[in-house]
Amino acid sequence: MRLGAIEAGGTKFVCGIGNEHGVIEESVSFPTEQPEVTLGKVIDYFRESQVEAIGIGSFGPIGLHPGSPLYGFVTTTPKPGWANCDFLGTLRQVFHVPYGWDTDVNAAAYGEAVWGSAKGLQSCLYYTVGTGIGIGVYAEGQLVHGLVHPEGGHVPVKRHPEDSFQGLCPYHGDCLEGMAAGPALEARWGKKGYELPADHAAWEREAYYIAQSITGAILMLSPQKIILGGGVMKQTHLFPLIREAVKLNLNGYVSAAEITEHIDNYIVAPGLGEQAGLCGALALGLRAYQQAHEKAGAI
Amino acid sequence: MRLGAIEAGGTKFVCGIGNEHGVIEESVSFPTEQPEVTLGKVIDYFRESQVEAIGIGSFGPIGLHPGSPLYGFVTTTPKPGWANCDFLGTLRQVFHVPYGWDTDVNAAAYGEAVWGSAKGLQSCLYYTVGTGIGIGVYAEGQLVHGLVHPEGGHVPVKRHPEDSFQGLCPYHGDCLEGMAAGPALEARWGKKGYELPADHAAWEREAYYIAQSITGAILMLSPQKIILGGGVMKQTHLFPLIREAVKLNLNGYVSAAEITEHIDNYIVAPGLGEQAGLCGALALGLRAYQQAHEKAGAI
Repeated sequence: MRLGAIEAGGTKFVCGIGNEHGVIEESVSFPTEQPEVTLGKVIDYFRESQVEAIGIGSFGPIGLHPGSPLYGFVTTTPKPGWANCDFLGTLRQVFHVPYGWDTDVNAAAYGEAVWGSAKGLQSCLYYTVGTGIGIGVYAEGQLVHGLVHPEGGHVPVKRHPEDSFQGLCPYHGDCLEGMAAGPALEARWGKKGYELPADHAAWEREAYYIAQSITGAILMLSPQKIILGGGVMKQTHLFPLIREAVKLNLNGYVSAAEITEHIDNYIVAPGLGEQAGLCGALALGLRAYQQAHEKAGAI
Repeated sequence: MRLGAIEAGGTKFVCGIGNEHGVIEESVSFPTEQPEVTLGKVIDYFRESQVEAIGIGSFGPIGLHPGSPLYGFVTTTPKPGWANCDFLGTLRQVFHVPYGWDTDVNAAAYGEAVWGSAKGLQSCLYYTVGTGIGIGVYAEGQLVHGLVHPEGGHVPVKRHPEDSFQGLCPYHGDCLEGMAAGPALEARWGKKGYELPADHAAWEREAYYIAQSITGAILMLSPQKIILGGGVMKQTHLFPLIREAVKLNLNGYVSAAEITEHIDNYIVAPGLGEQAGLCGALALGLRAYQQAHEKAGAI
């Protein structure tokens, strides 16, 4: 089976072709420009590909209610040209295949649930910590949407008692993203994350905020696995700091051995590594194919 | 149809018999004593009732994984006699009917989704603010469980800048429950909530903490409705304070008219009022009946 996958980021797009086993057979990447240019490249890439379905994990906010006129749109982004852009509709005019459509982080969560670190589980939470912070939520075997979709990057956080940094979020100042996304790290310490040594005080501070949000997420959602991806999490020395801080925060309240004894296997890196986003889009495409197939079979 | 419903609280049990339209036809209430005594009363109540299914919303923590040996148990509660109590198994020995089983707050969330304030929606969040604080999560048309179940009462919260109260939670000190549950209100102000006048400073403080947790929940879960029940929320003047604080926290970031324009209809009291818990248990019973019926039909 040939399935198309699109990881649509605000900075770059990755398009790939893969199969129903989660194997990406080929891929291409290009910077995100105006939608006409970028979606034109997407269309060119898939034109001769004969894919049987396409899955898309997109930067957002995006329209996710199937009945809504904005379904398939990128909605209110400040990214030039993309606000109110009919992403999905543009592709639908060209390729008459089933489509999977979700946020980039929900796609990554789904890919991890199908083929990655959360394989076989009914729930997981995917964080990306990079230029921004976002979360994807998979619960009871479903990707979670609602009023809009999870925007976990902006949750309120308690300040570290020694922290006077104001935070960079234009909406909330010192929310999680304002305190702990890549640009906050750089603004606070004057260097990019990868330039700071592993024993720098920056990392304990970074772990403090990320762990606090994870603590809240565990208490609200009780996910079976928490997966941390994104550029900042390439500093893998953050993982043990975050795990310790989460245990300290929970203080034994959630008496699950996964947390109290095996947290190394509970808060983890993406099993699909760098391909979490693209494989996630592939998984959305596979699901769309299967759903269309089932529907056809039921008629 | 006659369906049984059990709202099993740590302080009192309510048992009722209702129908498939959410109407409770009769009910009885008694204090929660040792499990032999209390479950004995439950069994006596339903013995001649000829109910076709029973739904239970229970205080917890409880075992919720259908494959687990602890499914149907109250697990680690400090409530004397109830730790590792096989609640569901005890009833199953007597009544051979389908059972619905979930946490008290998940039951209430489900009842509100089926017959109450969230009727027709695919997601809602139910808070109870009383002796403790708990949340029930309904998302994508499913009640959410995972590693255990949502324990949202214990999420970390930022302190109010003028607040020096230490908090009452034995695990976390100043988590949401430690700062804002009924006993915290009383410890902080020296009076019970219902004794404090509507213009007392207590309420703005109370709203600050509840709203903060709701803000986090909106950002993590994006529920289509937020329902606030429990004893403390009987002080209905809290609702406008909480709504205003949530809007202030979000600061326009979630651009959904439900929040920015119609928040009075987004953060609401239980549509089922005092019966949210019992009707929720009834809804669980109805679902169990329907699932058993479907399964039987499919064979």
